[in-house]
Amino acid sequence: MQIAQVRGTVVSTHKEPSLRGAKLLLLQFIDADGRLLPKYEVAADWIGAGVDEWVLVSRGSAARQIDGNQSRPLDALVVGIIDTVSVDNRNLYSKREQDRSSFP
Amino acid sequence: MQIAQVRGTVVSTHKEPSLRGAKLLLLQFIDADGRLLPKYEVAADWIGAGVDEWVLVSRGSAARQIDGNQSRPLDALVVGIIDTVSVDNRNLYSKREQDRSSFP
Amino acid sequence: MQIAQVRGTVVSTHKEPSLRGAKLLLLQFIDADGRLLPKYEVAADWIGAGVDEWVLVSRGSAARQIDGNQSRPLDALVVGIIDTVSVDNRNLYSKREQDRSSFP
Amino acid sequence: MQIAQVRGTVVSTHKEPSLRGAKLLLLQFIDADGRLLPKYEVAADWIGAGVDEWVLVSRGSAARQIDGNQSRPLDALVVGIIDTVSVDNRNLYSKREQDRSSFP
Amino acid sequence: MQIAQVRGTVVSTHKEPSLRGAKLLLLQFIDADGRLLPKYEVAADWIGAGVDEWVLVSRGSAARQIDGNQSRPLDALVVGIIDTVSVDNRNLYSKREQDRSSFP
Repeated sequence: MQIAQVRGTVVSTHKEPSLRGAKLLLLQFIDADGRLLPKYEVAADWIGAGVDEWVLVSRGSAARQIDGNQSRPLDALVVGIIDTVSVDNRNLYSKREQDRSSFP
Repeated sequence: MQIAQVRGTVVSTHKEPSLRGAKLLLLQFIDADGRLLPKYEVAADWIGAGVDEWVLVSRGSAARQIDGNQSRPLDALVVGIIDTVSVDNRNLYSKREQDRSSFP
Repeated sequence: MQIAQVRGTVVSTHKEPSLRGAKLLLLQFIDADGRLLPKYEVAADWIGAGVDEWVLVSRGSAARQIDGNQSRPLDALVVGIIDTVSVDNRNLYSKREQDRSSFP
Repeated sequence: MQIAQVRGTVVSTHKEPSLRGAKLLLLQFIDADGRLLPKYEVAADWIGAGVDEWVLVSRGSAARQIDGNQSRPLDALVVGIIDTVSVDNRNLYSKREQDRSSFP
Repeated sequence: MQIAQVRGTVVSTHKEPSLRGAKLLLLQFIDADGRLLPKYEVAADWIGAGVDEWVLVSRGSAARQIDGNQSRPLDALVVGIIDTVSVDNRNLYSKREQDRSSFP
């Protein structure tokens, strides 16, 4: 999986019928130092990730391994909202601190 | 999925028999700032996307998750025509504005 | 799919038994402006593409979606010989013109 | 598979239900000269790899080819802890020497 | 498939049980001009490729399309030892000449 930040949404009304009801998020990838990369993925989200949150995204056939997705033409899925990323025993990211800095 | 703009078509008469009738579009990828990238994909299209429109493209086995495609040797599919792309709560792209600027 | 030009062949006598009889072409990728890229793929070919021709190549599990290939360890397949590539309503490539320029 | 070093962990409490109990490691890729690359993967680990160890990581549908993972939306898996990497008949990496140098 | 040269081996004793007995080779990729690229893959090998030989490597689910591999978490497989690579009707590589130059 890759680490990505939710940056926005993509809306498509004229689409494959099996994709109706799918919420599509624009995710920007984050490198192992916590910086945004010039690379993104549009992924389906059923767990309710919000803008600015860090998430884990699975790509390829993994995106269809949840109930309801098996026959959808999806190649990317938000599989988790990240609480913490630890590298070399220090916190690279912590959702709680992020929230605190947002609501000082 | 990736965001791409329809740039043209590819015609092949001598091809795998299962691909007969498939419309193949040349899609150029677009980055998260809305700029064209030097990267493309030739994808099957059954939803009728037109030149210049922005579309969502699924790659890999996802391209075969629609009726009729299951046994076709396809690795890319147009899954939706994009209405809007929103990044950081502002519109990066809006099909309606695009049309308006085309027909002033 | 990607657009590629047939550049040559790869011969392997000591190989996985299921690959016996498979013709393996060396394909060099072509960008959306019609230029050769420093990127290639060795792909199986059952439709008889010849050197210099432009072809469509499918990668990944798509390469096994034709009769006889289902259990072969292949990840790339020539799925069509290209007649024309049109970008922005002009011809980027036309097999007929290519032939004409070869036999003036 | 790629060679990677375990650098840390990713914790997500709000995630796809099928991922409960999965330990997710942050792996940084290593090139063929033994140097860290600016590229990572978050992979599930059931064999107990520890920080700093070199591991083999499989990506794509391979990540779901072990008992219990078949229906999990995973696209990367730690498949082995590396003992030695030999290139041109010399040792590029040896876990034993690594340990020795850590505990002199 | 990609063309690669066998550079070495990777040994892992603590690994997924289904990988026991699998021989893992370190393969360095070769470009269409015959030069080594700074890119490698660790692939399973059941056909007995030796150091310095040029091989064809299949990646993704293709690596599991041979007897015994179906349920192994593998994403890369040596599928053939290369005899010759011909580009533009000249030999880019010939195993026989390679051997001759090794034993003059």
